[in-house]
Amino acid sequence: MTMKKAERIAGMLEYPFAEKLRICSRLKEQGHQVLNLGIGSPDLPPPPESINELQHSSMHLEAHAYQSARGTPELRKTISTWYDQEFQVALNPDTEILPTLGSKESIYMISLAYLNPGDQVLYPDPGYLNYAQAALLAGAELRSYQLCSKNNWKPDFNALEETDLSRVKLMWLNYTHMPTGTPGSVSLMKKALAFGAKHGILICNDNPYGTLHSRNSPSLLQGRPLPPHALELNSLSKSHHMAGWRIGMVLGHSTLIEPVYRLFSHLHSGIFLPIQRAAVTALNVNPRWHQEQRSILGKRREAVTRLLNLLGMEVGKGQQGMFVWAEIAGHISDPEAFADRLLRNHHVFLTPGQFFGPQGNRYIRASLCAPLKDIEEKIEYFENRFQTSEFSV
Amino acid sequence: MTMKKAERIAGMLEYPFAEKLRICSRLKEQGHQVLNLGIGSPDLPPPPESINELQHSSMHLEAHAYQSARGTPELRKTISTWYDQEFQVALNPDTEILPTLGSKESIYMISLAYLNPGDQVLYPDPGYLNYAQAALLAGAELRSYQLCSKNNWKPDFNALEETDLSRVKLMWLNYTHMPTGTPGSVSLMKKALAFGAKHGILICNDNPYGTLHSRNSPSLLQGRPLPPHALELNSLSKSHHMAGWRIGMVLGHSTLIEPVYRLFSHLHSGIFLPIQRAAVTALNVNPRWHQEQRSILGKRREAVTRLLNLLGMEVGKGQQGMFVWAEIAGHISDPEAFADRLLRNHHVFLTPGQFFGPQGNRYIRASLCAPLKDIEEKIEYFENRFQTSEFSV
Repeated sequence: MTMKKAERIAGMLEYPFAEKLRICSRLKEQGHQVLNLGIGSPDLPPPPESINELQHSSMHLEAHAYQSARGTPELRKTISTWYDQEFQVALNPDTEILPTLGSKESIYMISLAYLNPGDQVLYPDPGYLNYAQAALLAGAELRSYQLCSKNNWKPDFNALEETDLSRVKLMWLNYTHMPTGTPGSVSLMKKALAFGAKHGILICNDNPYGTLHSRNSPSLLQGRPLPPHALELNSLSKSHHMAGWRIGMVLGHSTLIEPVYRLFSHLHSGIFLPIQRAAVTALNVNPRWHQEQRSILGKRREAVTRLLNLLGMEVGKGQQGMFVWAEIAGHISDPEAFADRLLRNHHVFLTPGQFFGPQGNRYIRASLCAPLKDIEEKIEYFENRFQTSEFSV
Repeated sequence: MTMKKAERIAGMLEYPFAEKLRICSRLKEQGHQVLNLGIGSPDLPPPPESINELQHSSMHLEAHAYQSARGTPELRKTISTWYDQEFQVALNPDTEILPTLGSKESIYMISLAYLNPGDQVLYPDPGYLNYAQAALLAGAELRSYQLCSKNNWKPDFNALEETDLSRVKLMWLNYTHMPTGTPGSVSLMKKALAFGAKHGILICNDNPYGTLHSRNSPSLLQGRPLPPHALELNSLSKSHHMAGWRIGMVLGHSTLIEPVYRLFSHLHSGIFLPIQRAAVTALNVNPRWHQEQRSILGKRREAVTRLLNLLGMEVGKGQQGMFVWAEIAGHISDPEAFADRLLRNHHVFLTPGQFFGPQGNRYIRASLCAPLKDIEEKIEYFENRFQTSEFSV
């Protein structure tokens, strides 16, 4: 007897990074130094006071009890203050903020809460894989929209207007954009809102990279009253190096938050209280901490850019976020084989751009999640090799 | 413009305890001592060494990174040893064990991974609400099966055989049963497996209360090879007072685990490493710790039974788990109004049995999650009142 799995998961992909990460592990076991710029998992710690708060809170009896699926009032209030400071967006902590287990989960909750089979979902190509995977889970139809360097990696709403939008229910935006590092703008957010309003489309902006640069990428939630068709997602994964802690948020009009909360309250029994308290502490951290992180990431960005240039790749100007997005040299015919050679022969893990959709085909993505020293060592390694005229990657 | 929510969540209930918990909070704000036996949220701490381990692990850099959705090898190995010790079930840690965020989430994952619209789901009445809610989320049809004192709160498979089972895809068992406290038995598990094999039904046993008694309620996963149509769920919420920590597991044949893992790997980015490490420590705790907890719960069970008897309720023999299940006196015409009077006038929160399904109509459920002293104070309070002949609840 075999139990058939549900149709909704039949089309869902294996996580494409899994195989590459296995190769990384194997190389490390063999004693090789691997420069893993493949994924965006922080190698830096959160603010030390948030770790202290976790430790302290875990000693209280109440830490062990179920928590409300709405999150603590204190956490919602702190998120409200943070959003006002960082994005000049005023949110009611009681009705317009829902703490979640991170952006990834928020994407699935929103998709399950709003999408019926037959609905269509617009999502960016290249882009984060889970927008499409979540749509599949909800039985919706996939409609990617193309981003490219010619349109500055921004959606072409005019081109979209010329297509049949009658079945589109949801559109994912993600600015600062992953993987291209393109920051958003107020005019882009306004255009997206107008487009959604015209066609009855729920616009969702996934904004976890928005605060990594000294000039924040603007929120979708511009002005009051909040738009009745706009949600924003954020997370402490990148902004506070708390990826493994699993804490994020969905923000927007109360009528839009309510169904997501309803679902969240069924699937979970709240978020571990010490993590909620640590998140409060992290969100209240002295701005100096953020300046330091930006300075570290800035230096890494320069070094990673040098490394990629050395390998014949071209990096566009003005990128932000946690990654560098680079165009592969014209003579490389097979970008995935190129990335594979870099990993197996030279122990550098860069992600082939096609992992993020066909539009990423001639690109690679490199994260900033490795120490400067390690990046510089790899630069030196290649510089030495390139002095031998017959060396090529 | 209003964004319509998805049909799959339209039928999902509000959590029925929410209103009662609001009343509890209000009474406490007014300075009243409320004896909250309404929910099963632990008021006791986990083993102290597991809290130490959380604190210690949170200082390591790796704590802040994303974790594998499979859980750490160490946690899976520890679960394997624990299941062997507690239930004499041998499980392969690599393929037959999936750590999750608790039983509640496991129920939703299994439902989404296996149920198509039109499939039917058998679930116990009375029983835990989320079996039905998860089936609704997956678009499946609900078919409760009746438990009652006459059949010792066990499913009547003969009666089920006389119905059309052709569309039943999944059956939920939950022994030790919540809310009735009925322990399982090997013969019941065997009957369920045979029933599932005959009709091609996936049998899932939710077993979080199985270790709270000195004699464990047996696992569904009897013998090797593992049945190809059986999953078991467990959790550290009740066994180790770690409800708020959100850590549980799905266990069974590798072919059944795989789709649940696939889904879990999409919806989440792994479980916070310090929680996984703390779970390892908790599962390895000295058996003396469990003896102490059982002794505390045993004394509370006696006291709660006395309290309920005093209020005219009858408690069946041999109950196990985290709750007492009591039949309301025959003269009480409206059980919910009775529970409401107890809460509003006498500040005791007991859950009306009908919250768990129509078969719970003449019952109430009381948890063991309050200190002995508080229960005894309430007994004294009622004893004093009942000396006044005109007093009634």
